[in-house]
Amino acid sequence: MGQTRELFAAPTMAAIFSNEAHIQAMLDFEGALARAEARAGVIPAAAAQAISDVCRVELYDVAAVIEQARAAGAHSIPLVAALAGLAGSDAGRYVHWGATSQDVIDTALMLQARAGLDWLLAELLAIGARCAALAQQHRLTPMAGRTLTQHATPTSFGLKSAHWLSAVTRQIERLQRVRAEGLALQFGGAVGTLSALGDAGPSVLEQLAQELGLPQPDLPWHTDRDRVAALAAALSLVAGVMAKIATDLLLLSQTEVAEVSEGVVEGKGGSSAMPHKRNPAEATFALAAARMAQGQAAVVMGAMAHEHERAAGAWHAEWVALPDAFVYTAGAVERVQSALSGLTVDASRMRANLDLTGGLILTEALTTVLAERVGRPEAFRLVKDASDRSRAAGRHLRDIAQDDAAIAGALTAREIERAFDPARHLGSASLFIERAVERFTWIVERLNAAEPEG
Amino acid sequence: MGQTRELFAAPTMAAIFSNEAHIQAMLDFEGALARAEARAGVIPAAAAQAISDVCRVELYDVAAVIEQARAAGAHSIPLVAALAGLAGSDAGRYVHWGATSQDVIDTALMLQARAGLDWLLAELLAIGARCAALAQQHRLTPMAGRTLTQHATPTSFGLKSAHWLSAVTRQIERLQRVRAEGLALQFGGAVGTLSALGDAGPSVLEQLAQELGLPQPDLPWHTDRDRVAALAAALSLVAGVMAKIATDLLLLSQTEVAEVSEGVVEGKGGSSAMPHKRNPAEATFALAAARMAQGQAAVVMGAMAHEHERAAGAWHAEWVALPDAFVYTAGAVERVQSALSGLTVDASRMRANLDLTGGLILTEALTTVLAERVGRPEAFRLVKDASDRSRAAGRHLRDIAQDDAAIAGALTAREIERAFDPARHLGSASLFIERAVERFTWIVERLNAAEPEG
Amino acid sequence: MGQTRELFAAPTMAAIFSNEAHIQAMLDFEGALARAEARAGVIPAAAAQAISDVCRVELYDVAAVIEQARAAGAHSIPLVAALAGLAGSDAGRYVHWGATSQDVIDTALMLQARAGLDWLLAELLAIGARCAALAQQHRLTPMAGRTLTQHATPTSFGLKSAHWLSAVTRQIERLQRVRAEGLALQFGGAVGTLSALGDAGPSVLEQLAQELGLPQPDLPWHTDRDRVAALAAALSLVAGVMAKIATDLLLLSQTEVAEVSEGVVEGKGGSSAMPHKRNPAEATFALAAARMAQGQAAVVMGAMAHEHERAAGAWHAEWVALPDAFVYTAGAVERVQSALSGLTVDASRMRANLDLTGGLILTEALTTVLAERVGRPEAFRLVKDASDRSRAAGRHLRDIAQDDAAIAGALTAREIERAFDPARHLGSASLFIERAVERFTWIVERLNAAEPEG
Amino acid sequence: MGQTRELFAAPTMAAIFSNEAHIQAMLDFEGALARAEARAGVIPAAAAQAISDVCRVELYDVAAVIEQARAAGAHSIPLVAALAGLAGSDAGRYVHWGATSQDVIDTALMLQARAGLDWLLAELLAIGARCAALAQQHRLTPMAGRTLTQHATPTSFGLKSAHWLSAVTRQIERLQRVRAEGLALQFGGAVGTLSALGDAGPSVLEQLAQELGLPQPDLPWHTDRDRVAALAAALSLVAGVMAKIATDLLLLSQTEVAEVSEGVVEGKGGSSAMPHKRNPAEATFALAAARMAQGQAAVVMGAMAHEHERAAGAWHAEWVALPDAFVYTAGAVERVQSALSGLTVDASRMRANLDLTGGLILTEALTTVLAERVGRPEAFRLVKDASDRSRAAGRHLRDIAQDDAAIAGALTAREIERAFDPARHLGSASLFIERAVERFTWIVERLNAAEPEG
Repeated sequence: MGQTRELFAAPTMAAIFSNEAHIQAMLDFEGALARAEARAGVIPAAAAQAISDVCRVELYDVAAVIEQARAAGAHSIPLVAALAGLAGSDAGRYVHWGATSQDVIDTALMLQARAGLDWLLAELLAIGARCAALAQQHRLTPMAGRTLTQHATPTSFGLKSAHWLSAVTRQIERLQRVRAEGLALQFGGAVGTLSALGDAGPSVLEQLAQELGLPQPDLPWHTDRDRVAALAAALSLVAGVMAKIATDLLLLSQTEVAEVSEGVVEGKGGSSAMPHKRNPAEATFALAAARMAQGQAAVVMGAMAHEHERAAGAWHAEWVALPDAFVYTAGAVERVQSALSGLTVDASRMRANLDLTGGLILTEALTTVLAERVGRPEAFRLVKDASDRSRAAGRHLRDIAQDDAAIAGALTAREIERAFDPARHLGSASLFIERAVERFTWIVERLNAAEPEG
Repeated sequence: MGQTRELFAAPTMAAIFSNEAHIQAMLDFEGALARAEARAGVIPAAAAQAISDVCRVELYDVAAVIEQARAAGAHSIPLVAALAGLAGSDAGRYVHWGATSQDVIDTALMLQARAGLDWLLAELLAIGARCAALAQQHRLTPMAGRTLTQHATPTSFGLKSAHWLSAVTRQIERLQRVRAEGLALQFGGAVGTLSALGDAGPSVLEQLAQELGLPQPDLPWHTDRDRVAALAAALSLVAGVMAKIATDLLLLSQTEVAEVSEGVVEGKGGSSAMPHKRNPAEATFALAAARMAQGQAAVVMGAMAHEHERAAGAWHAEWVALPDAFVYTAGAVERVQSALSGLTVDASRMRANLDLTGGLILTEALTTVLAERVGRPEAFRLVKDASDRSRAAGRHLRDIAQDDAAIAGALTAREIERAFDPARHLGSASLFIERAVERFTWIVERLNAAEPEG
Repeated sequence: MGQTRELFAAPTMAAIFSNEAHIQAMLDFEGALARAEARAGVIPAAAAQAISDVCRVELYDVAAVIEQARAAGAHSIPLVAALAGLAGSDAGRYVHWGATSQDVIDTALMLQARAGLDWLLAELLAIGARCAALAQQHRLTPMAGRTLTQHATPTSFGLKSAHWLSAVTRQIERLQRVRAEGLALQFGGAVGTLSALGDAGPSVLEQLAQELGLPQPDLPWHTDRDRVAALAAALSLVAGVMAKIATDLLLLSQTEVAEVSEGVVEGKGGSSAMPHKRNPAEATFALAAARMAQGQAAVVMGAMAHEHERAAGAWHAEWVALPDAFVYTAGAVERVQSALSGLTVDASRMRANLDLTGGLILTEALTTVLAERVGRPEAFRLVKDASDRSRAAGRHLRDIAQDDAAIAGALTAREIERAFDPARHLGSASLFIERAVERFTWIVERLNAAEPEG
Repeated sequence: MGQTRELFAAPTMAAIFSNEAHIQAMLDFEGALARAEARAGVIPAAAAQAISDVCRVELYDVAAVIEQARAAGAHSIPLVAALAGLAGSDAGRYVHWGATSQDVIDTALMLQARAGLDWLLAELLAIGARCAALAQQHRLTPMAGRTLTQHATPTSFGLKSAHWLSAVTRQIERLQRVRAEGLALQFGGAVGTLSALGDAGPSVLEQLAQELGLPQPDLPWHTDRDRVAALAAALSLVAGVMAKIATDLLLLSQTEVAEVSEGVVEGKGGSSAMPHKRNPAEATFALAAARMAQGQAAVVMGAMAHEHERAAGAWHAEWVALPDAFVYTAGAVERVQSALSGLTVDASRMRANLDLTGGLILTEALTTVLAERVGRPEAFRLVKDASDRSRAAGRHLRDIAQDDAAIAGALTAREIERAFDPARHLGSASLFIERAVERFTWIVERLNAAEPEG
């Protein structure tokens, strides 16, 4: 269900957020709850064992559970009933003890979110590694810097890659933080007081958090949805960064620009009407998936005003919107990863495009050296005039400058010549690239160091 | 795929917007194109016949087509290849002649949208009929009118139902108009010039529109997405109206209000923790589905800026977002329909709630009669004072008023008494109900009259 | 207030939706209400006269009214108080008789919306006229058709303009319809029953509608917000169409494409760092304003679920979001109008760009003629191979084709030559242009004919 | 400008994000840049002094600067021109040296954001303190816990306040983190290479960051907008938390619930038609402002795909949307603060409402004790039957239970009696309240400790 949805979804993430995986995560909660309650002396150990034994999704008719939820109002209800049935009449009575639907559904989503974040982190690290390689490899590959659609001054493809890297690195840090601090066990019973557990509440809470490996929150958060909204916001930001990279790739792939290409794979990015077309299909799908992910994230963020102790509707919208935000964000990430990994970079075309403006792209360079002699306003004025003449005459700005009395009066011919060498005008690009790579490297090392425990 | 999505989807609409139905709609386009081109003399009649013969979705591996589209960039490409294969080498060469991917995908979505609109129209008519019945039956059932959470002055449940009816009627008109004028054949070839068809373009265009029963647009609209966005907007409005009705139902269902109930069906709206709960599950799901539908519609509207002759990404986002907007809007509609059809209305509770403010709900009534004697500002002041005393003393405003020298000086005891009978203060409610029902009836009749041709 | 907001707003629309204009519109309602009630015999004619006389915004301290509304909860309350004060103690008591805050605020917004729609219609007609002129003037100006960032097959700049025209024409029709059918008087009293007016409700309603020239709705619509949401949706669509045009202009303005330019005006689109830059400032602002307009429209559409008889919050969000949707949509419209009116079109650059792919842009043309001889699949295969060779060798596809045994075997040299003339492959472009212009012309004529009454 | 916008804005925040404050922040950048460049030996110290001296907004015609920006494309351009003029011809040539428009505009927004975050933090601390007081004061004030609109089991008003506190505390932490790590100096020159500064780039960068007290980023972030989007996301979350609190207040204020009231202030929350009304005006405006803030934040997040080295439109949309997100979030915060600070809590009404269901609200309590004897499924069944009979007969569940053979067979009369005392069934509520208060207290202490340096 969900027409052509597969094209925008990362298959692994779609598996993490499937009905089957969701029901298994709910069963993980129920099994862990039984064990935690047995340990706290709330229910018999034998019952916990019997319950745990049947907390495997393959024992359940997932489609039937979901179907029954249409009338029941929540899939936890038919699931708990089925679980109680399978656990047998002795143990069955202890199933879901003291819990409410929102406990099991929210916690299941948190367990799935953890898996989803892990997948995203791994993919973003791969993208980061690729960007770092591109940044270093093309440190000195000059290309046109473009602002507001116009050639501005030169930059390098390495610096452009370093920008992607820098944004990706920050999202890795963001997701790590969300992974470490933003997830939380949900367990509060009917209205969040754990009233059904009497004095045993805190101890079950602690055991349960340990069983599931989820942080124990200060208090149940049934209608305090900032955690969920923060997850959605983080996904939206990751999707937004992917959209930025995809947009750059699409613009650089244009026939008129042609500085990068997604690479030629048989059957990829073809056209049903035009045999010569090589469409940037990965970036295209990435951009679409990013838009869809941000749409879902907006639904989650827009539904934060949960009423009282359980919301009628606002909560339920999260059931689909949060998973889909993960699925489409992952789709965008996977597509960007694929686009970058197969990317062909045409450095000579970049160099050629730098000449398109007949030297105008180096007006800043010229202005800068000139400003040292005549001041910035005057330099600006002189270069603007020269630029206008260059454009009008279709003549290279360098030649116009050499002929211009005022400019040539202030600068030597050699100085003018040098102003038009893009490689000399990359400013601090190399330093910036280094910094971006260092930051990424540091994050990777920190992650690797943390690995054994994580 | 799409975790718990089924709970928010109307199954019939989900079937209309499934991969299978989508591929069939694409095949409908390809078959119709072949026949139109044969009729225009562009391809041989035998080829058209052979192509038409294999335009049945059951001949295709739908999952494989979608899977191949991940690399190909569009599902039209593997589908056209498979279709050409099935049509045989003679006819196969004429498959998809002169068309582009966007022609077949957009037209398929339009055919599906038509089916989707028809389903929505039928359901909205059912909701309208139910609202009309409620409006007439409860024309004189007084209840508290509530503004900004506070009892204001009396209204009737019939008038409340008439409001729902009126908004639903307008959405029926809106969808009818979209159905009649907002859909359009998409057929323009690679960049919308029909260049591959030479002079035959216009004639194929006309035949094809006729074959598919879709309006012929002035010109192909590959990147003019206002039609698609208008569809999305119409769905968003329908979803918004459903959200309004669901919100009212939820508020009226509150334990403290208890004026309506979704009705008791075994297994419906129960709680996993509290046996006595009767949750308004239909309204809850309706509200959630409406939020999700509006989220999808916003994605479509936000993606209108398609680049040049085919967008990279903005178009693709529509592939999922428009179908899902239909599916979730239908989910909201179906849930509201179900909630209303089983609705229990507690008129006596409505009457009882009217007394909750100790007569304060009739301050406007009192102010109005008083104003006729002492002017509106003075009446307002007198009644405000009396209200404050009523509230402070916990005494019925009627009694306060009878004892108030200024008020009792201006009005007779009988006049004061009458001011506190809610049934006397429904103003033009009956007239408004009549008008809403008349408008709906007129729309239904117009629809029925149009049926034979529609 | 509202930092740099002026840059994205059309000044005239900002004046239509200012506090002053809003308060005047509210006073228009109050004056008309008094006159309508006098005519219906509800209040004395002298009072109506006295009230009408002071319904001029210059008599009020607008800032103070808004300031007092912070505590009062609605600006109607301090305004009505001030109006009653100015009207004198006799007439003052009849001010706002039978009305509620939402009556005056909603109706004022409708009056402002009418003025806003009129302004938008006039501007869109100007844009349409400019697009129609461009479409006709450049009917045969070939340019590259671009799909998914790649050159696809030729189109003409006239056809591109006709697309803009066609979308603009449909928005004119949409806004006309909204103007004619989507606005409505709001008048229902406290909870929409007109209870304070007794039997006089319907007659006051009718007189008031006539006074204000607004359609009388079937029933008051305090919490039936589909009308307001439909207005917002229409604005969102207009903004989306502007975004499409602006996007095309930006892409065509790119240094590497350079097919259009916004024209050089002293001081316009300059850069603080680069004297040679000529930024497409109008399209840039248009795109930004369109995004902002759509954001505001989404707030309105997302707030349709008004509770009971008056919403706490959802309604209030409209107070700013609807006006701002108008203001920013108008900003986008004004900027597009300005960009198009000064647009420089470089037909020779368009022609030159067509050659960028070494003939690959005409593969469809070649495939089409070839398909007539060898069937579409074989033609597709042959041309794809030739294209690959052309790209690999950097040699024009025409020459590759002439040398290719299979292609040259099926086609004459002349046929191959002709396949590479873009002007011969514009298909039905001229027809489509004609149709778009005709439709626009018809709309304009209908509007002019309607003018006397409108 | 911006009709009725004042009602949803916090005045102080509106002043922080006004044209005047923005221009001053831009001048702060320019002054600091001059000093930094002087220190780095890039420009003469005297020029830096002369520039610094005129970096005061009162010297500029702010309205004219903005007006000129309509054509110039950015307000930095006329501002820099005016600044250079005021600085005199010697110093004027060094104004804005090596910088680009985006450097000064982005940095100004960051400086304003810092002030905005500080204001929000202070207000949220006030809200937190009030919630903490309510939580402790009402630790044992029982009230109905409500899920899906229905009474579920008892909770306490203290716990409800603790939930608000907990969400507010997390937003304080979030904003602190954004304040400490999410802001950054923007300084990169034309395309982010600092090419105009030659080797001096890094040193100017460092001095400038120090001058402005803003973190120095790894590299300029002209089109890496995750920082800005993260700011917007944080605001959206704060707004969402305010919406949750406002929603609870509105629901609790309903005439039928009446457990809290915003308090009576002369002229506040009145009605133009009904003298007795006491509308929850603060919560109403809070909810509206929160919706508007989230709408603006969505615009920022949805505009992350900036093209190349400077976006045409996506960047510009941030100019208004980010400030407005601050202004409306602050509006929501201020309104919630005001609503809570004047809040009247009616504990006796809370107690009375607990009895509305005739004991049904304590079914969980009864089920729990019963389950210890007969197992959960059987207990659930028995209580459900008893509940149905209680509801049908309109008789208190306690009495039904006492008469029920199965229930009374399993429990003593005293046990049944106790099951219906809400104060005995608050579970871990007190513990949860303590934890929420402790966390908040810890955050406050940490903040106070940091104050001297912060």
